[in-house]
Amino acid sequence: MTEIPDDHPRAASLRTRHRIEDGVEKGITSKQGLIAEGRGEAFDYLLGERTLPSADDAERAAAAQLLLADHAVLSVNGNVAALVPGEMVELAEATGADVEVNLFNRTDERMDAIADHLRDHGADEVKGLAADARIPGLDHERAKVDADGIGDADVVLVPLEDGDRAAALAEMGKTEIVVDLNPMSRSPRAAAIPVIDNVVRAIPRMTEHARDLAGASDDELERIVAEFDAEEALAAAERAIRTGGDE
Amino acid sequence: MTEIPDDHPRAASLRTRHRIEDGVEKGITSKQGLIAEGRGEAFDYLLGERTLPSADDAERAAAAQLLLADHAVLSVNGNVAALVPGEMVELAEATGADVEVNLFNRTDERMDAIADHLRDHGADEVKGLAADARIPGLDHERAKVDADGIGDADVVLVPLEDGDRAAALAEMGKTEIVVDLNPMSRSPRAAAIPVIDNVVRAIPRMTEHARDLAGASDDELERIVAEFDAEEALAAAERAIRTGGDE
Repeated sequence: MTEIPDDHPRAASLRTRHRIEDGVEKGITSKQGLIAEGRGEAFDYLLGERTLPSADDAERAAAAQLLLADHAVLSVNGNVAALVPGEMVELAEATGADVEVNLFNRTDERMDAIADHLRDHGADEVKGLAADARIPGLDHERAKVDADGIGDADVVLVPLEDGDRAAALAEMGKTEIVVDLNPMSRSPRAAAIPVIDNVVRAIPRMTEHARDLAGASDDELERIVAEFDAEEALAAAERAIRTGGDE
Repeated sequence: MTEIPDDHPRAASLRTRHRIEDGVEKGITSKQGLIAEGRGEAFDYLLGERTLPSADDAERAAAAQLLLADHAVLSVNGNVAALVPGEMVELAEATGADVEVNLFNRTDERMDAIADHLRDHGADEVKGLAADARIPGLDHERAKVDADGIGDADVVLVPLEDGDRAAALAEMGKTEIVVDLNPMSRSPRAAAIPVIDNVVRAIPRMTEHARDLAGASDDELERIVAEFDAEEALAAAERAIRTGGDE
């Protein structure tokens, strides 16, 4: 990663790809994860590889929502662990959230590799290994969560989540924040707060917003959440992809 | 692959992904190939997973160009071998073209695995293993071609080709046909005939056109090639992606 000069026009994109490839070597990223990374690259290319103003609004609303939560949990899958392990730990610290590993293709080896990777990046406690609760309406392996983690959470951040699980979590009544680069896909459409942005840009920005809002009153945080318009944010992102314009 | 019912709404897309994943098991598809498959999926999704009329025109012009060639060569990389091995062999037979393996990340193991895979799908002769000629202007490993293959060809079909190599082949004066799902990327823009379509749809259609044109005169074939407008085909595909419309 240090071989890519900062002034390379595609430095950020190349660093992202290297992190994903390193994730394969470490047993963190799956084949499906590599294909998903490619899909994300294409949508990010069409978005201009930038954070739209509407996405920044979503990131601020997400930070406010995490700060308001009684029990917030940040869900980590293989690509999230490969791309933003330290950034997720920082966001958890800035918002008082738990971190829980949840995989679409769950194996004990990948669960352990990801939990170790998060601990290497500063996580004190990593949930997801107990798997003593279930999300209703999903296949056995995909339904597994921790009873004192996502099972108990009122607010969940699920970056790069599968559509079925995003819908099932929303149906459980959890307030859901989804990060995804395709505004037409089901996951962000199931979310209370859809963040249409690259996870490598979105997570650090959420942390910045959370630090900025650390002293804010609940009233102010609630106002920020209430003013965020999910439908309009999705529409703005789709317009940006379709027209290539500035929303 | 037989587990996916034909009436499944995403049957074609799922079969494609299974072929790519099988390619990984066989040592044919690389990590980069999986990411590239994901990028292609995203662009194909935005195109509506269909062959645009302008793409069908390109496929007919490509067939005519292959039939007109003194020496046509079909280049095969890891994803092409995983996705359309038998289809490439059929196109070679229908046009009298050679088949040559060319990899972006060349290793002897992958070269052999791909050559074997093509032979399993009916190829008599597979070029690319001699590697006794070079494409000027490329890194050592990426420059390797066969002297009596791409080195000697006047017309080359390079599906899913890297931008640098597509540009270098065009600079050698070869008439280049590129299949790619992103009309904004450099490879199709370097091509005499850019085919903006999924390789799983494009290659069988080229073969159909070649069979249909088998009895055509050189004058007729030349007219078909001359009437194809590469700039307009690229613009039509970009409009379809951006607006979601029917070109």
